[in-house]
Amino acid sequence: MKQTHTPPTMKDVAAEAGVSLGTVSKVVNGLPVGEPYRQKVLRAIDKLNYQVNSYAQGLKASRTNTIALLIPNTRNPFFAELVHHINRQLLKRKYRMLLCTTESDTDLEQTYITMVQQNKVDGIIGLTYNPNLVIDASVPFVSIDRVLSPSLPCVACDNFAGGQLAAEKLADLGCKHVAFLRIGSALNNEPNKRKSGFENGCANRNLHYDMMILNDGEPLTRFRTFLEEHRTAEGFTLDGIFCVTDYIAYCVLRFLDELGVDVPGEVQVIGFDGTRAFGSENYICSTIVQPVEEIAATCVDLILQEDIAAKPSLICLPVRFADGGTTRPET
Amino acid sequence: MKQTHTPPTMKDVAAEAGVSLGTVSKVVNGLPVGEPYRQKVLRAIDKLNYQVNSYAQGLKASRTNTIALLIPNTRNPFFAELVHHINRQLLKRKYRMLLCTTESDTDLEQTYITMVQQNKVDGIIGLTYNPNLVIDASVPFVSIDRVLSPSLPCVACDNFAGGQLAAEKLADLGCKHVAFLRIGSALNNEPNKRKSGFENGCANRNLHYDMMILNDGEPLTRFRTFLEEHRTAEGFTLDGIFCVTDYIAYCVLRFLDELGVDVPGEVQVIGFDGTRAFGSENYICSTIVQPVEEIAATCVDLILQEDIAAKPSLICLPVRFADGGTTRPET
Repeated sequence: MKQTHTPPTMKDVAAEAGVSLGTVSKVVNGLPVGEPYRQKVLRAIDKLNYQVNSYAQGLKASRTNTIALLIPNTRNPFFAELVHHINRQLLKRKYRMLLCTTESDTDLEQTYITMVQQNKVDGIIGLTYNPNLVIDASVPFVSIDRVLSPSLPCVACDNFAGGQLAAEKLADLGCKHVAFLRIGSALNNEPNKRKSGFENGCANRNLHYDMMILNDGEPLTRFRTFLEEHRTAEGFTLDGIFCVTDYIAYCVLRFLDELGVDVPGEVQVIGFDGTRAFGSENYICSTIVQPVEEIAATCVDLILQEDIAAKPSLICLPVRFADGGTTRPET
Repeated sequence: MKQTHTPPTMKDVAAEAGVSLGTVSKVVNGLPVGEPYRQKVLRAIDKLNYQVNSYAQGLKASRTNTIALLIPNTRNPFFAELVHHINRQLLKRKYRMLLCTTESDTDLEQTYITMVQQNKVDGIIGLTYNPNLVIDASVPFVSIDRVLSPSLPCVACDNFAGGQLAAEKLADLGCKHVAFLRIGSALNNEPNKRKSGFENGCANRNLHYDMMILNDGEPLTRFRTFLEEHRTAEGFTLDGIFCVTDYIAYCVLRFLDELGVDVPGEVQVIGFDGTRAFGSENYICSTIVQPVEEIAATCVDLILQEDIAAKPSLICLPVRFADGGTTRPET
């Protein structure tokens, strides 16, 4: 006699293991659960030959195929480029993007977290500076540039290597006395590592450096004052400047122009990000280029994974130097 | 005896008028329907004292509170600024934005039209160069910069006035022999009106002008050749240039720099759009500024209207001139 099968359901697994349906669901989805419970569920799955994939399939069917992107704004060219590539990557995979320009509004960010919990979106990719954001471990969330929790993957460029590359490049270009200009942030974020990388690079090459750090909110004109102090009767006493972003480099180049200091003749300037005017033209300055397209692809790959908590908590993607006319050709 | 009422439904109106439910719906929503049918429905609504608003309320409850934005990309700073402001306007009204960077992909655009028809989004705001896009009159669609159909509202800046303002401004600044540089488009879009406006302004002021038009896809270096031809032993023979976008102005400024022509000393340059580096800084050139924030607010107001087809088919918002250092101070 031929036996007919109905495939076992998650309910059958729960009954066999003597645990609740929620516990089975947690195990199947790789969420934290007490080890004895996990063992019971795994034994029951094994015994009943329960197909985890069919459940995952079921999950997929109830999906919205929508990922939310939280980003401070789209006016900053780096953010705009990021939005562009994440959008293209999602569309390629038939996913839609809910865009939320947060301007760092905590309530807005929290609203989107709630939407994931109510299954209105499948996950969130977020670049947030909000230190109070509450995200529980069940929310699929991929963070950009800031590690929010060890269970949530964070994607960034290799900021430390970028800072180091800037220092070494200035040394290669013949600089002897350089400066590092940045805006400080109390937050423990990835871009802050540019500083340590730069210091490391200067130490490696015995390169003397000054550092000027503004607090959030201080006027950028303080950089102008700093630069003015280095203009002496003998000329400009710095021969290289590393700015923590292209935006600061852009302002610094204006200040130097106003002060009559020639770039790259008297001083060479390197920024960070890889900003190009109109998205497809020349770099606005010599710069450490973030691999925006790869960052976008990695974020999208991660957020569409079943078991996001099992992924590495920090992925750093390689940067490179690009000449944008504010450094001299290498000899 | 006190009579109890249940408010009349749309079904009651259909029965009273002797028409289908769909016909009542069309009339209620201001969609095209044969005039005799419309009269029948209006009489029935009147007789039963049917409250159109309660129906509209019902409609609202079934809404997704989601608007799709179709835009070629977010790398062009004008588009990025538009995305930013439309996003902020929608969030203010508790609406979410599905972002679709189309890169002018016809299939993608059409997919979003279908989503509206399936009630997956409440409406679309779109900037599309796709001449084959099929949108039926029932789809709430607000177009930017291009009139797609008389029944779909289009929002743009006053491109004609902008072109005219550029010509008049160059005349005010003492120019005698100017040029207009643009990329031609076969499409009947609003930005094309910059040309007619400019010609009109030149005629008003007896200002002599040359015109150089590239076809889509022709290399911008042809503008460089054009400029080179105006460099003679007696100096540069143009004293003013109007570029149809800031992007072209940006390229032209580079070409002029390469050719050793001083801006604004020998020639003054005006662009169009109001592009600012990093979204919050100085204009990259003297320019005709589009009121992006107002364009965004108007699009959002329109798309959230009940009766979109009753709205004006073209709304042009005022532009202004801004000095970005590539023109001389007015005397």
